[in-house]
Amino acid sequence: MARRSLPLSKVYGLLEPGPVVLVTTARNGRQNIMAMSWHTMMEFEPPLVGCVISNRNHSFGLLKATRECVINLPTVELAEVVVGCGNTSGISVDKFDRFGLTSKPASCVGAPLIAECYANLECRVVDTRMVAKYCFFVLEVVKAWVDTSVKAPRTIHHLGMGQFMVAGEKIKLKSKMK
Amino acid sequence: MARRSLPLSKVYGLLEPGPVVLVTTARNGRQNIMAMSWHTMMEFEPPLVGCVISNRNHSFGLLKATRECVINLPTVELAEVVVGCGNTSGISVDKFDRFGLTSKPASCVGAPLIAECYANLECRVVDTRMVAKYCFFVLEVVKAWVDTSVKAPRTIHHLGMGQFMVAGEKIKLKSKMK
Repeated sequence: MARRSLPLSKVYGLLEPGPVVLVTTARNGRQNIMAMSWHTMMEFEPPLVGCVISNRNHSFGLLKATRECVINLPTVELAEVVVGCGNTSGISVDKFDRFGLTSKPASCVGAPLIAECYANLECRVVDTRMVAKYCFFVLEVVKAWVDTSVKAPRTIHHLGMGQFMVAGEKIKLKSKMK
Repeated sequence: MARRSLPLSKVYGLLEPGPVVLVTTARNGRQNIMAMSWHTMMEFEPPLVGCVISNRNHSFGLLKATRECVINLPTVELAEVVVGCGNTSGISVDKFDRFGLTSKPASCVGAPLIAECYANLECRVVDTRMVAKYCFFVLEVVKAWVDTSVKAPRTIHHLGMGQFMVAGEKIKLKSKMK
C-alpha cells in the first residue's frame, strides 16, 4: 500500500468510469458505511460530485447533519463486503466491525477513510437545493488519496440485483478531450 | 439486431455501470451528437437521469431549447466514433454523416436514435433548476429500446485523456438490493 495525496485535478478519472463506491459518514462517535452507484462528476476543479443518497438510508441523516463524508473506491476483492454494506443498516450494525474493515482518520473531514479501498475522497456538502426533491447532494472533494501501486483497479459496476460488471482491459485512443 | 422496447423499470441497469453515452439532439432539421460521461440515475421509475452538458457544447443550446434528447449506449466497437464525436463540434460538422452513423426516428421525442448503439433512451428535460450554476439537467426517460441479442455489452468507461476501461466479466452475488 502506497497511499499518496492525489492532485484534485485528477479526481474525475476515478469517478467517471462509474464504479460502485462506499460512502462513509460519522456522528457522535459512530461511523457508518453505505454502498452507492448513483453518482456523477459535475466539475473538474475543484472537483464536484453529485450523488443520490436515499432518505431511506441511515447515511442520509448523518450526511445532512454533518455535511461531510468520504467516498471510498473498492475493487472486486471487496465485492462481498460491498454487497454486505448494501444489505445491512447502520442503525443496528457497526459495518466496520461486521465486515472487518479498517477505519482511518481523514485529514479534512470527520468521516473516516476505509483503509482497504484503493482510493478515498474526502468531501463536503456544498449544495442541498435538490435534496428535498431528489435526495441529491452536491459534494466538493477537498482531499483525495490513492494507492499509487494499483495501476489497473478492478472496480465493480452495478448492473442491478446483485450483478456487477468488473472493470476489464484499458484502451487508449488519440483524443483532445480531458 | 433485435431492437425491443425495454420496461422503464429496467433502465437503471443500463446506466448505473457508468458507460460513456452518445447524446443526440435535433432542432430545425439539424441533428447533433455529443459524447457524455457525467451522468447518474436519480430515480428508478419513472427513470430520472441527471447529467452535465457543458454550455461550451453545441448540444447545450439544442437541449435547452427543445427539452428533448436521446441517450444512446455504444459498445467498444464504436470507440473511435465516440472519441470523434467528442473531438468535433456540431456547429461545423454533421456527425452522423462524418462518422457513418444511422439516424432513426424516435417514438416520443424529436431527437434521433443512433441505430448502431445497442440501447437508446428517449428523454425529456424535467428540471432545469441546476442548469444555470452547474449545466446539470434532470431528464426523464419516457421510452427505452434495447437490442436484446446483446447479452454482455462491452461498454466503454472514460478514464480521461483518451483512455477508456472496457467492460469486463460479470459476477453475481446474493443481494437484497435492487
